[in-house]
Amino acid sequence: MPDDLRAADPQNAAEVTFLPQNQTVGVQKGATLYDAAIKAGVIIDALCGGNGSCGKCKMILFPQGTEVLACKYTVHENIFAKTVPEDFSVMVREYRGISEKAYEESDRVFRKIPLTLSPPTKDDNRDDYSRITDLLKQYFPDTKISLPIEIMRTIPGYLRENCWKISVIVMHDEGKVTVIHAGDDINYCLAAIDFGTTTLQASLLDGDSGQKICESSMLSRQIVFGADIITRIISARKKLHECSMSGISSINELLKAMNAGKPEIYGIILSGNTAMTHILYGLTPEFIRKEPYIPAQNAFEPAECQKFGIGEKAVMMSVPGISSYVGGDIVSGIISTGIYKKKVPCFLMDLGTNGEIALGCGDFMISCACSAGPAFEGGGIKCGKRAAGGAISKAVYHSGKISLTTIDNKEPNGICGSGIISLVSSLFTAGIIDKRGKFAESSHLVTLEEGNKKIVLYKNKKSEIFLDEHDIENLLRAKAAMFSGCEILLEYMGLSFNDVDRFFISGGISQSLDIEACIDIGLLPEIDTEKYTACGNTSLTGAEKIIMSQKLRQKALAIAKETMYLDLSIIPQFSDRWTAALFLPHTDLSKFSKRTGVISN
Amino acid sequence: MPDDLRAADPQNAAEVTFLPQNQTVGVQKGATLYDAAIKAGVIIDALCGGNGSCGKCKMILFPQGTEVLACKYTVHENIFAKTVPEDFSVMVREYRGISEKAYEESDRVFRKIPLTLSPPTKDDNRDDYSRITDLLKQYFPDTKISLPIEIMRTIPGYLRENCWKISVIVMHDEGKVTVIHAGDDINYCLAAIDFGTTTLQASLLDGDSGQKICESSMLSRQIVFGADIITRIISARKKLHECSMSGISSINELLKAMNAGKPEIYGIILSGNTAMTHILYGLTPEFIRKEPYIPAQNAFEPAECQKFGIGEKAVMMSVPGISSYVGGDIVSGIISTGIYKKKVPCFLMDLGTNGEIALGCGDFMISCACSAGPAFEGGGIKCGKRAAGGAISKAVYHSGKISLTTIDNKEPNGICGSGIISLVSSLFTAGIIDKRGKFAESSHLVTLEEGNKKIVLYKNKKSEIFLDEHDIENLLRAKAAMFSGCEILLEYMGLSFNDVDRFFISGGISQSLDIEACIDIGLLPEIDTEKYTACGNTSLTGAEKIIMSQKLRQKALAIAKETMYLDLSIIPQFSDRWTAALFLPHTDLSKFSKRTGVISN
Repeated sequence: MPDDLRAADPQNAAEVTFLPQNQTVGVQKGATLYDAAIKAGVIIDALCGGNGSCGKCKMILFPQGTEVLACKYTVHENIFAKTVPEDFSVMVREYRGISEKAYEESDRVFRKIPLTLSPPTKDDNRDDYSRITDLLKQYFPDTKISLPIEIMRTIPGYLRENCWKISVIVMHDEGKVTVIHAGDDINYCLAAIDFGTTTLQASLLDGDSGQKICESSMLSRQIVFGADIITRIISARKKLHECSMSGISSINELLKAMNAGKPEIYGIILSGNTAMTHILYGLTPEFIRKEPYIPAQNAFEPAECQKFGIGEKAVMMSVPGISSYVGGDIVSGIISTGIYKKKVPCFLMDLGTNGEIALGCGDFMISCACSAGPAFEGGGIKCGKRAAGGAISKAVYHSGKISLTTIDNKEPNGICGSGIISLVSSLFTAGIIDKRGKFAESSHLVTLEEGNKKIVLYKNKKSEIFLDEHDIENLLRAKAAMFSGCEILLEYMGLSFNDVDRFFISGGISQSLDIEACIDIGLLPEIDTEKYTACGNTSLTGAEKIIMSQKLRQKALAIAKETMYLDLSIIPQFSDRWTAALFLPHTDLSKFSKRTGVISN
Repeated sequence: MPDDLRAADPQNAAEVTFLPQNQTVGVQKGATLYDAAIKAGVIIDALCGGNGSCGKCKMILFPQGTEVLACKYTVHENIFAKTVPEDFSVMVREYRGISEKAYEESDRVFRKIPLTLSPPTKDDNRDDYSRITDLLKQYFPDTKISLPIEIMRTIPGYLRENCWKISVIVMHDEGKVTVIHAGDDINYCLAAIDFGTTTLQASLLDGDSGQKICESSMLSRQIVFGADIITRIISARKKLHECSMSGISSINELLKAMNAGKPEIYGIILSGNTAMTHILYGLTPEFIRKEPYIPAQNAFEPAECQKFGIGEKAVMMSVPGISSYVGGDIVSGIISTGIYKKKVPCFLMDLGTNGEIALGCGDFMISCACSAGPAFEGGGIKCGKRAAGGAISKAVYHSGKISLTTIDNKEPNGICGSGIISLVSSLFTAGIIDKRGKFAESSHLVTLEEGNKKIVLYKNKKSEIFLDEHDIENLLRAKAAMFSGCEILLEYMGLSFNDVDRFFISGGISQSLDIEACIDIGLLPEIDTEKYTACGNTSLTGAEKIIMSQKLRQKALAIAKETMYLDLSIIPQFSDRWTAALFLPHTDLSKFSKRTGVISN
């Protein structure tokens, strides 16, 4: 056990081992399991901040086998504690009535067309199939039209009972039109799904108008196969089918909750990173993590959802990916932000676990993955947590005090990415953290516990939320990876930050991000802050656009195929750039001259 | 009960009612059930001719419920007798070693291609999917290539274990290439199936060479839904799924028997009439028999066999049809005979139950269905039977005697189409049958039984095989339908028989047909007999060609779409033409001037 996890008084201590993390921590007898979890850096859901009201922090004790609330249970002996199954319930947010931009009818991927056929005669004895497809050819000249046998079976009787009027819904994709419904004039929905490593987020769109009906999100059931992507890949190698099915069941739950009482879903589009997409399609992700890091497949043909165990009638599409570590979620982001059609280069920086970056415009597109680690999502930070209720989303030092803002104004229960960035920024600006990320000896805020310096942000009788130098180091590694990744892409293209027109920041963190703070710590370059746009989950918003437009689907395929992927691990300069960026804001202070006053010579 | 079915001596008679025909016949007590069946015109399989050796003529007695051999059981009381289930066993004929014409590689629908891929590097980091499809594009430029996810799943591991060599089998159809196998370099088969109303006949072809490996045939299980096409349509309307599945199960049995121990089948092509094709695809054939006689679908997209319950991996195709009563079997015949590319018009006459005719060449193609009835297949003839072992295939009157030839030289057990034609021809030529199809009073061959004139061809102690005037009438109706159908097609095109270069006769009957006899009775026109070609089951031989060649598949689609269908029922002249053709050889003797000496003025 590392020193910082030992109890202060060994005579009066007990050890708690958390499973499945297998993380052991020493605490004074009488401390709660929640205290122990905080100390161990074990992230547990405790929306109420450990006051016993939310009931989320359930754990099972071994060998006793009893279930307890971590915040209520006091430790008196050495125990093993296992977190109980996560909450996979679906959150649904209705959007009814919110009008969105209309889509051009002829460009639609899914389209409803009412047909009035001329009844057959002895002179016009074309078969029913030709009667329908001939009329559809007037809508889609020079296009192959497919009317599958499953649909065709219902048509002859329907036509004769309904005076030769019939409504079809077609999918128009890659120069081919496929009839996916024929019969009554019905409403239908389309679904876009951001299939993240940890979280799934989906939108339900009205099939006709493209208007958003509702959004939903849930924790992916796949997390039982490992929280991070490498563990997930290793699990999937052994249990591909099970891992794939757990993703599929997550999708089915999400769709079911979102679609309850609404028209049937006829088309689904998935947007996710390359490994997640592989697993979902039942392809081994094994070779993604083996040199030379080759995906099995980046772009997928539309297929029947039923083949995968999803839904009933819907067609499944996915946003094509670029490489093993720059997936469809980034292509969605490029589409969503529109940087592919800009005249001047723009950045898309996805502040997620992996930290992908795209740089480009109408003329070129280049991308890389930074291995930034999970710090922006609260991972690797002892009191870190995802941006959920109770997370400190902003922490600002001023006049000797730190003021906190939490998500949903709940009692603090951890600190998320934007909170850490704002905190480190203001502490650095105030001189309480030095350029190496170490605490200044002089500050009254810094306390020493078990040889470990930390700043306590919040404390109640049960627990405390703090920041220590290891947390800062993790943040610095992540921000250095992003910044140096941007630099390498620019250098590769012979550009500088000043040549970049706009910086789009995507990812769950982006909406609550303080851009000035990001510049202060050297995560983002020191340019006019008006050039920054925080754009949220562009994996989802891009997918919503792509499922509505053939042109955008074609564009996504072209982007996926033509975007250059730069493997940073084989760029000799990357390591130096990264090391230089580990300082606050940077070793080369002239890169942040407005703040440092240092001008490049 | 009609007079001709009553027993001669009512005092010593018993009645036998045959099920499911519900046909009652009176026989003298002591007669066999076989005698009764012959008298009743109930066709039963009795390969041995009723001598008790073959055991095929099983029947179940009611109310007793016992199973007996019809040829052994003597009738002593009124009984009901039900024919036991037909023999659906598959006959397989091996063809190994017989060389056939090779097909042009680039024109193949199914094609095997060994690929040697360049292994990926950090510079060439294309995904496995693109690595394969990019190489395939060199074989298929400007063609959309599809590599379905089911196939793709096995590829990443295979490639890395096999030094980036992989063999694919593709289907190239309508400008699209689909990979249907990827892995080891394997042999595979293709199957062509003539899906007849009564009988299924199939060929197994070597996938690489197109060489025929074997042929198989069986009675269709669908006959339990009615022997003729109209009954089948009525059954299918009520029990479409069951009727469809019984066809599918027949196909599965046929393929299984034929394919035992041979490489897997990857592609199947079906050729059948429009109603049979509808039922097999699960489409209602209901509107085929309702004015204005519109099929649901004439041409079908290739689909996975699994969707229909056939085989495992194979792709299912079918030969497209022309109209409700001229199906894919005729398009196959047009392809097989090659009349679509002739410079001078040719006839294709299919002497089956329906009697379809096509007339055309490279410039035009026209078709009709004649409703000829089943006489050419032995139907509607009291001692008629299909052309199977023991059937009289030739019966010639000479010098006061009739000499018989039977199939497989077995004891006669009935008379098939070619036998009836040769018999009527020689009896007419000899003056024993007059031009109206009636027996001349003077012949010693003609006997009178229960007021019904007949000529007994064969007799043993159990039964007799005979021809009566009703049988002749049925033949005359059938031959008149065919001849007048030909005339109407010619008139429609402004042509005469002399303008026709070749007459292709297809159907099971064609191989044993005496052309001179056909002309004698006025079934075929009086032209140079060298212009006639008997070509057997062209539905099957055409399908064999079509599954091997994209050009022929495209040609079949074009023929199906462009061939004109003439509905004889709305052609005013047809009825007069038909009535005139009911005579032997014809009312207008100048049409057969070589035989009649009558010259048209």
